[in-house]
Amino acid sequence: MPQYDLYHNEVKNALIKDGWVITDDPFTLEYKGLRLYADLGAEKLFAAEKNHEKIVIEIKVFNSPSLITELEKTLGEYNIYLSVLRRTNPEHKLYLAITETVHTDFFKKPAIQDILSDQQINYLIFDPNQEVIVQWIN
Amino acid sequence: MPQYDLYHNEVKNALIKDGWVITDDPFTLEYKGLRLYADLGAEKLFAAEKNHEKIVIEIKVFNSPSLITELEKTLGEYNIYLSVLRRTNPEHKLYLAITETVHTDFFKKPAIQDILSDQQINYLIFDPNQEVIVQWIN
Repeated sequence: MPQYDLYHNEVKNALIKDGWVITDDPFTLEYKGLRLYADLGAEKLFAAEKNHEKIVIEIKVFNSPSLITELEKTLGEYNIYLSVLRRTNPEHKLYLAITETVHTDFFKKPAIQDILSDQQINYLIFDPNQEVIVQWIN
Repeated sequence: MPQYDLYHNEVKNALIKDGWVITDDPFTLEYKGLRLYADLGAEKLFAAEKNHEKIVIEIKVFNSPSLITELEKTLGEYNIYLSVLRRTNPEHKLYLAITETVHTDFFKKPAIQDILSDQQINYLIFDPNQEVIVQWIN
């Protein structure tokens, strides 16, 4: 089993406050002998669209000395999870969860914005103190 | 400056034997305040096509205990280098260099093949003992 990330509970609480039901903690990805764990699975009923949205969340703290090394690992992990999800759970959308600080200080740098845009990463920004989701970015 | 990978010289010699001229060692990627180093740059004249092919090589040894963690880092790094290269050196193609052993024991696993195919990774397989390139995979 995976270790919990810092902010695991904060993101979980933020999702619940936002109307999501936590369905998986962690979310297990199994495919052709590979077994991986994403942090959370959740779903929410959007009544207007009569639609259940299902998401898988991977929390990334970016607290290592080299942010670019952590971004490399994050993007690789995101793409591996995406490859597996498309085959095993195609109805689930994958999101990275990052703090406002990481978004402002690192993700908004011009070079990083271009890289994230090429990679078509979905992410949500959360406030770990208030335990709320600040923004969803698709 | 980056540390040399194990097999840096072996890959360099294999490329030279294959008719490539080493143009950059390491190959510097600079873009909007980001500075990264790929292992090698090389070019080769293909007389029949009157074409200079230019490549950037990143050597990956896969000697850590968790191969999947190393793949995550490798794919993220590959995608970041690709984002930068497309903007700064669009005439260069990016290749991972891996040994025959890594190819046979890890890359050929069904789950990994699917992930690599989704990511459209170019790689070359080399024999570190003979210092030769065994196969190019696009």
